[in-house]
Amino acid sequence: MTSLAVDYHGGGRFKARSYEPTEPASGEVRIAVAFTGICGTDLKIAHGAMDHRITSPWPIGHEMSGTIEALASDVTGWKPGDKVTVMPLEWCGQCPACTRGHSHVCQNLDFVGIDSPGSLQQHWNVPARLLVRIPDRLSLEHATLAEPTAVAVHDVRRGGVEPADQVVVIGGGPIGLLIAALVANHTGADVLLSEVSSFRRGLANRIGLRTVDPTSEDLPAVVAEWSDGKGADVSFEVSGSKLGVLALTDVLAVRGRGVVVAIHTEPTPVDLMAAFWKELDIRGARVYQRADFEEAVDLLAAGVIPSESLITEVVPLSKTEQAITRLASGEDIVKLVIDSQ
Amino acid sequence: MTSLAVDYHGGGRFKARSYEPTEPASGEVRIAVAFTGICGTDLKIAHGAMDHRITSPWPIGHEMSGTIEALASDVTGWKPGDKVTVMPLEWCGQCPACTRGHSHVCQNLDFVGIDSPGSLQQHWNVPARLLVRIPDRLSLEHATLAEPTAVAVHDVRRGGVEPADQVVVIGGGPIGLLIAALVANHTGADVLLSEVSSFRRGLANRIGLRTVDPTSEDLPAVVAEWSDGKGADVSFEVSGSKLGVLALTDVLAVRGRGVVVAIHTEPTPVDLMAAFWKELDIRGARVYQRADFEEAVDLLAAGVIPSESLITEVVPLSKTEQAITRLASGEDIVKLVIDSQ
Repeated sequence: MTSLAVDYHGGGRFKARSYEPTEPASGEVRIAVAFTGICGTDLKIAHGAMDHRITSPWPIGHEMSGTIEALASDVTGWKPGDKVTVMPLEWCGQCPACTRGHSHVCQNLDFVGIDSPGSLQQHWNVPARLLVRIPDRLSLEHATLAEPTAVAVHDVRRGGVEPADQVVVIGGGPIGLLIAALVANHTGADVLLSEVSSFRRGLANRIGLRTVDPTSEDLPAVVAEWSDGKGADVSFEVSGSKLGVLALTDVLAVRGRGVVVAIHTEPTPVDLMAAFWKELDIRGARVYQRADFEEAVDLLAAGVIPSESLITEVVPLSKTEQAITRLASGEDIVKLVIDSQ
Repeated sequence: MTSLAVDYHGGGRFKARSYEPTEPASGEVRIAVAFTGICGTDLKIAHGAMDHRITSPWPIGHEMSGTIEALASDVTGWKPGDKVTVMPLEWCGQCPACTRGHSHVCQNLDFVGIDSPGSLQQHWNVPARLLVRIPDRLSLEHATLAEPTAVAVHDVRRGGVEPADQVVVIGGGPIGLLIAALVANHTGADVLLSEVSSFRRGLANRIGLRTVDPTSEDLPAVVAEWSDGKGADVSFEVSGSKLGVLALTDVLAVRGRGVVVAIHTEPTPVDLMAAFWKELDIRGARVYQRADFEEAVDLLAAGVIPSESLITEVVPLSKTEQAITRLASGEDIVKLVIDSQ
């Protein structure tokens, strides 16, 4: 059985490779990969911005779904044909973060699909401890949203969102849309999504979200009116922009919580006067814990997430590089999914 | 009885004024002011930086102590001769911050001594609701530290400091020293104080604090070694400097809490990558609640705060302007106190 993998070679280059699938080693299963979603981090990789972390050619990809096709003899609890996704975090269990209960942000974290090979291939051997079961009623295509939905679940948890809250989400990419949909459809809080792209605002409106265009409307003024002068209880910075970081504190009420979700690689100006004056909490949120991931699968299976609207394009594995290039060019795509079947 | 007041006239100018003390109006008491401490905000006022808030000539000053000398007939619970200090916050009770239990950061807060007349005078009429009793065993001079100690109590509360924590305080001015002394002497956590001035480091060492000079030592490396690679559980930015803001996140452990105490009037670069990577909480802290203020008085009375070491100079009311000028020039003064007696 000859299979296809798409290796990332550094410098923004991908190359297809044929290989013979191997038997799973002790503790591992082999997954017939079905689908892999492409995320913002994958785009950063494709721009060469993370070449220091990807030390030799291997497939990237960490938002996946598939079916178990082989198991090592010491793996229990799973069988061939089980639908699975992978929670792509491997922690050391020994650093201060791990021993204090924060293993998801382990100081030596291996992010599978970045720091080690990922799912942009047809047959993938992974440790069984990373598997999360996909229930029958959730399709393999929609299950690729488990990983980004787990991010959103974790972000909402970090924000401490309560049903009576008013929430502003700054940035309507996939994660921003997932956070907003989760808050609106599951937590039941009131949500306002700020997004500059009319394509993304249109999609957000179609899934029932209220949107603001911060380039033509005064976002803090809209929030002030919406909240009778109080401000938002929680805000999420998911835009990755400097204006988004300033808006994060600007829209908040006294004692509001601002969650930094987007990655800002350089020190970025924050309105610390607002943080002081309103006694704000600004909280970083990164990846997820196992409970977040399992909740994400449940929410997807329950139809809380508008998966059908969010996955706007599915392309075959052999077209990975071209598809990533189109996504990076800012084409009107929300979630791009690669089909390995 | 002719009395002396020192009015702030804007543009950094102070002027002495003679006046006849008046009878307290309904709900008020008249205090024979004993001492007034000068703080960083008073220095900002003296630089003209807050002229937009001080709308006509009046005395500033909000860290005070004195003795009640007259009461309106409708004031109960107090009598002439009672030693008091004033908690200088007047809130509206009606804005969203007040109605949600955060009246200390009321959206229409009147900070007495800034937004309305303060204690740099000999006889001061104030609403009885602002009074806090000074116990017999606490001297009027040391009681001027109640207000800044209340700030420190509130800051430590916002930081959620626990006895087993390792705490870094960045900046060893009066508030930084009070936070560090409180954490060391009362909470019982381990403290490291980062301060550039050798005068202040010397004073901190004399009151038993461990210090680091961040200009000659690598603060994050010192903290990493001190904490066996974990990082600090809590950090306080009390320096008001850009390097202090970067150090705030740099020294923290995974899930550490960084408290922004100093006022940064312009948006200031924050290492949001560190906030994201380590899932930090960055929290603003402003003034105090009544419980903080009362605890501060108790701590001072109990000798937890090394008041004698912190008050490095006492000058008469008539010398206010010269003393503030010397303090602003960076002379080796920690806490300057004005004597109105």
